[in-house]
Amino acid sequence: MTNKEFREMGHLFVDWMADYLENVAEYPVKAQVKPREIFNQFEDNMPTNGEDMNVIFKDFQEKILKGVTHWQSPNFYAYFPANSSYASVLAEMLTATLGAQGMLWETAPAATELEEKVMEWLKNAMNLPKNWHGVIQDTASSATLCALLSAREKYTNFAINNTGFEGFTDFRVYASSQTHSSIEKGVKIAGFGKENLVYIPVKENFSIDENALINAIEKDLKAGKKPLCVVATVGTTSSTAIDNIRKIGEICQKYGIWYHVDAAYAGSVAILPEFSFMFDGLELADSYVFNPHKWLMVNFDCSAYFVKDKGTLIRTFEILPEYLKTATDSLASGADAVVVNNYRDWGIPLGRRFRALKLWFVLRNYGLNGLQTKIRNDINLAKWLENEISQNTDFELLAPVNLNLVCFRYLGNNNLDKKLSEEALNEINAKILQNLNKEGKIYLTHTKLNGKYTLRMVLGQTNLTHAHVTQAWELIKTESRK
Amino acid sequence: MTNKEFREMGHLFVDWMADYLENVAEYPVKAQVKPREIFNQFEDNMPTNGEDMNVIFKDFQEKILKGVTHWQSPNFYAYFPANSSYASVLAEMLTATLGAQGMLWETAPAATELEEKVMEWLKNAMNLPKNWHGVIQDTASSATLCALLSAREKYTNFAINNTGFEGFTDFRVYASSQTHSSIEKGVKIAGFGKENLVYIPVKENFSIDENALINAIEKDLKAGKKPLCVVATVGTTSSTAIDNIRKIGEICQKYGIWYHVDAAYAGSVAILPEFSFMFDGLELADSYVFNPHKWLMVNFDCSAYFVKDKGTLIRTFEILPEYLKTATDSLASGADAVVVNNYRDWGIPLGRRFRALKLWFVLRNYGLNGLQTKIRNDINLAKWLENEISQNTDFELLAPVNLNLVCFRYLGNNNLDKKLSEEALNEINAKILQNLNKEGKIYLTHTKLNGKYTLRMVLGQTNLTHAHVTQAWELIKTESRK
Repeated sequence: MTNKEFREMGHLFVDWMADYLENVAEYPVKAQVKPREIFNQFEDNMPTNGEDMNVIFKDFQEKILKGVTHWQSPNFYAYFPANSSYASVLAEMLTATLGAQGMLWETAPAATELEEKVMEWLKNAMNLPKNWHGVIQDTASSATLCALLSAREKYTNFAINNTGFEGFTDFRVYASSQTHSSIEKGVKIAGFGKENLVYIPVKENFSIDENALINAIEKDLKAGKKPLCVVATVGTTSSTAIDNIRKIGEICQKYGIWYHVDAAYAGSVAILPEFSFMFDGLELADSYVFNPHKWLMVNFDCSAYFVKDKGTLIRTFEILPEYLKTATDSLASGADAVVVNNYRDWGIPLGRRFRALKLWFVLRNYGLNGLQTKIRNDINLAKWLENEISQNTDFELLAPVNLNLVCFRYLGNNNLDKKLSEEALNEINAKILQNLNKEGKIYLTHTKLNGKYTLRMVLGQTNLTHAHVTQAWELIKTESRK
Repeated sequence: MTNKEFREMGHLFVDWMADYLENVAEYPVKAQVKPREIFNQFEDNMPTNGEDMNVIFKDFQEKILKGVTHWQSPNFYAYFPANSSYASVLAEMLTATLGAQGMLWETAPAATELEEKVMEWLKNAMNLPKNWHGVIQDTASSATLCALLSAREKYTNFAINNTGFEGFTDFRVYASSQTHSSIEKGVKIAGFGKENLVYIPVKENFSIDENALINAIEKDLKAGKKPLCVVATVGTTSSTAIDNIRKIGEICQKYGIWYHVDAAYAGSVAILPEFSFMFDGLELADSYVFNPHKWLMVNFDCSAYFVKDKGTLIRTFEILPEYLKTATDSLASGADAVVVNNYRDWGIPLGRRFRALKLWFVLRNYGLNGLQTKIRNDINLAKWLENEISQNTDFELLAPVNLNLVCFRYLGNNNLDKKLSEEALNEINAKILQNLNKEGKIYLTHTKLNGKYTLRMVLGQTNLTHAHVTQAWELIKTESRK
């Protein structure tokens, strides 16, 4: 492709992109394809000769797009959103064009220092502890793994990094029964064994029972085990339950346990002063993660990971072979030290994309006010829906609406049906979900709360308006009555 | 930002992107900024009110760009390239726009199935074993970690995942002294301890000494240790040395050791039949990684990871909480089984970008012929430079030029200088590198080979031509004589 062709195709793409984002609500939000339908369209081998970009682009529209579930549709109420925005897409265009590699300060000074700057911006806007240091990870799963590994190495004074687990088994990690599956994944990778992840029961509001946590720690200590890390959650995946950050932090302090706080989804509300109570006690945490790529209009992937002690993080991951040594390494020590971050030592991958750029674009384009307005709107939409459901005797709320996730189920027509068994309700609600998603008008997912099949509806997509929510609610009522 | 503004800005961006890529050779290839220069330009806090995209874009050009090291410049000879291409940038524009999340088949059927398809394309074009399964990882570091974890879990029948290291210490991992630093990083994360990474000495051509490997394994077995994994390299970072894949594979077979092959950089030459000898014996490997984001014109990040036994990979990482269960999960078993990949279980992160799209765009736009031509050209440029250096008595080649990396040093003016000490040569060559990079005309990096400070020059950047290499060589000669 020549530069001229690239320019022409680029303009064609931009018009398609603007059209797509303008009309994204018109697509069936959940892809209407069968397994293997996309795969089977293409030859077994790549083409021998190069193909014109027009042909490839046409194939994209005709053969790929139908297999896309439209995460940027306002009809997307499933999982948690992976919000994008115009500003973020524009930034990604530049990131792709520069193709810079941010493993070291020297290989990408702008990417490195802008990352440090925007993480400071987030820290300040969210009133996170001043002494924290931020770094962008791909996902909260990776960030949590970093936390578990840092806890492991700090506890053992880096002995496992050096000589392995000999003499260091019996670590215990604690999290609520509502914790995200990435904690188990991290516990396995770090070598603790999932049987050493202790699930602590929750209270009625699905937040961790602190007394049960204390009891579990005490029991383990008596059995000679080593309490290593507690993971608290601000906004669980099933129901956005909020653990008591201060109380758990005080427990961790008392027992000398690494304290990791997972606010992957809900962390974005920290920009709202009226929700600061949810983060009270956060200064007790050793590590913290939230995902701007979920509710803060920054394209996936962009996970914000903060630590109190960056030295431990760096020592957990650092490597310095000859071919990665640079002149600026030596600037990091001595009296005239200039701190240069080499982010390769702040996580698992060596290579790193210039992800700070999209964060910078979004934070500037929205401004703090713009982001606050957006998130407040979403929370108000959830309040509206919560109110609708609570006034409708055919439906039942299954968890407190702490933020913008509404957990509910259909109970049957209250006027006609006899009271249905729990089993029947589970079946009916699973069926409702299946039918709703099949039509492609809206996309919801489910969870189980106290054994009850629960419909989850997250009101946070970038392009969501009150009209969309009203329509969705009508559709849910209609579909349920069928 | 409105849709109309996005469209306008998008067109503005595309023109800038085309201009940038057309003129990328004119920028100082290595950023000419001092530490903190980028950071200090910006306020301590994000703006309160949203800013116009024109202002942000202007700041990008005036305040960010000067801190960018231009990885897409043909004057970039440092590290290994992180090649991009027009086709890949276009694909990234669509990926950012769709903002799809490929954790499960259901959340992104097109991303999931296109990934499977393009990995098959690579497998076939590169004559990789038919029974392998491919998945895209972010980096080779992460892929190698996956290999080490899979080896760990297979050996222990998933006991470490379940109960931890109790009873399973003393694992040993083997790699050459020239192996990449990511192996050590992975060994530490997986909990083996870096003292259990055994560095095997290399032969004169910097490839692993197979007899030394056998001796190390035998010695460990006698000492009651457990040989777990051998990592062989096709194309080491320092000098693109090629380990003997078949011989090492046979050793692994004999001792029942997991065999991981790291071809992160050099793996791309597998599309050239004349280089198939480098990959002879690859069917003996359990896992294999190479990076299309290095030498195959696909934007970072895109690392291709292949395994023989996908069941072990999946069992190493799998998680299935209620909120991630989907209707298609059940399709994966029973008589009418339809295989649906849920790539969340094929690596560390849960969330995944739609990276298959750029690979698909590049493979189709270049075609196999186009990619072969590009890579052959680079290798011929390296041969030309090798020849120039070998005929110049002021310079010395320090490693075989197996592909497109030339390792050399300046020896001093052969007619005038007395023979310089090794120490003096190391100092002189470090100084030459520093001065070359300082000017911003070309960017090289270094390594040490047999204690000798070595200039590394990789001839593989997407936009590289013979004219660039000629110019660079003249510059190196001139700078060295100073």
